Amino acid sequence: MKHLQQKIIEFRDARNWKQFHTPKDLAISLSLEAGEFLENFQWKSSEEAVRENFENMKDELADVVIYALLLAHELGIDLEEAIINKIKKNEQKYPIEKSFGSKKKYTELE
Amino acid sequence: MKHLQQKIIEFRDARNWKQFHTPKDLAISLSLEAGEFLENFQWKSSEEAVRENFENMKDELADVVIYALLLAHELGIDLEEAIINKIKKNEQKYPIEKSFGSKKKYTELE
Amino acid sequence: MKHLQQKIIEFRDARNWKQFHTPKDLAISLSLEAGEFLENFQWKSSEEAVRENFENMKDELADVVIYALLLAHELGIDLEEAIINKIKKNEQKYPIEKSFGSKKKYTELE
Amino acid sequence: MKHLQQKIIEFRDARNWKQFHTPKDLAISLSLEAGEFLENFQWKSSEEAVRENFENMKDELADVVIYALLLAHELGIDLEEAIINKIKKNEQKYPIEKSFGSKKKYTELE
Repeated sequence: MKHLQQKIIEFRDARNWKQFHTPKDLAISLSLEAGEFLENFQWKSSEEAVRENFENMKDELADVVIYALLLAHELGIDLEEAIINKIKKNEQKYPIEKSFGSKKKYTELE
Repeated sequence: MKHLQQKIIEFRDARNWKQFHTPKDLAISLSLEAGEFLENFQWKSSEEAVRENFENMKDELADVVIYALLLAHELGIDLEEAIINKIKKNEQKYPIEKSFGSKKKYTELE
Repeated sequence: MKHLQQKIIEFRDARNWKQFHTPKDLAISLSLEAGEFLENFQWKSSEEAVRENFENMKDELADVVIYALLLAHELGIDLEEAIINKIKKNEQKYPIEKSFGSKKKYTELE
Repeated sequence: MKHLQQKIIEFRDARNWKQFHTPKDLAISLSLEAGEFLENFQWKSSEEAVRENFENMKDELADVVIYALLLAHELGIDLEEAIINKIKKNEQKYPIEKSFGSKKKYTELE
């Protein structure tokens, strides 16, 4: 992940784009790219969407993670550490015995 | 990245949640999480947002990438490869000499 | 619509919130509210979602239109006129004989 | 608003599109259109965005409200009533004396 992040920063710096990359604008772009990924499923079942738009999904999903890596870089977040910590929190919010086979939110689990 | 993906799949399978994880529903969740990340910046400058919400940003950014890894797994996408390919495409869409210091979209570059 | 818009502006001005309502921040909020509406459908079929979350849907849908009315006010857009114009454009983009019963985008219609 | 809603339903029914308009798919589309509106502000200040993209903003804002009206129709929500009720709730969540000139969320007001 660090290696990919490095490549992305090099791409950006070669174009002198850091000046535009405020965290707020990157956050907007992250949300827009996640929307573009979702657009592949508009009016479609999962099966139809994958059949018709698989190539585009690869590009859009890549864009989402590219912006996540740019944000992590700008904000000084170690993304791998953040993910590991978030999984630990999720393990506490969703104990196996209460959440097995259930799609309830943790606030609704008894 | 593969190692993190493995941990996430284990977390999910221990809870028997694969049944809910259609690509379309994962795509919706990816978009919602990107929105929750963006919410940290609502009514705020980047500086205010980072000062007040930095801890939450780590969690929400992690959630975005967690869903991206789940989607990549379900769709059979090699995310690292997809990112490297997307960077290559971006290099062609945004040649340095035309895009240096410019925030124009590639469709507007001359 | 004008009457509702007036009530919303009065609500805002009574709280002295106009200072926060830049078009960009309102646009972010519009997107976040649309996400909160969509969240009612996360991991659910339409039927389940409506059965479980109907009351919340009313509030979130109202929020989306409230922000649209605030944006129209700030930007000086006559929303009714904009909608009528957009329907006309859609009639040209989607002629009945080509789009009847088809979910293709206008760029894909032959 | 009822009159606009009627025009939108006529446009849809003339194309036999009701079959695609499940609440979940309409909710996805609402979110995507709100994203397209926000895209006008990507990498831009409010002023730049309005100067460069005002015409597009009218169309995208119209699209957001068109989907809101379609959703209200499908779900059997009286949108005007929902908005009036939501303003009343907001008046209780944000009493003037506590929220005047403050951008705090109601959960943070003292």
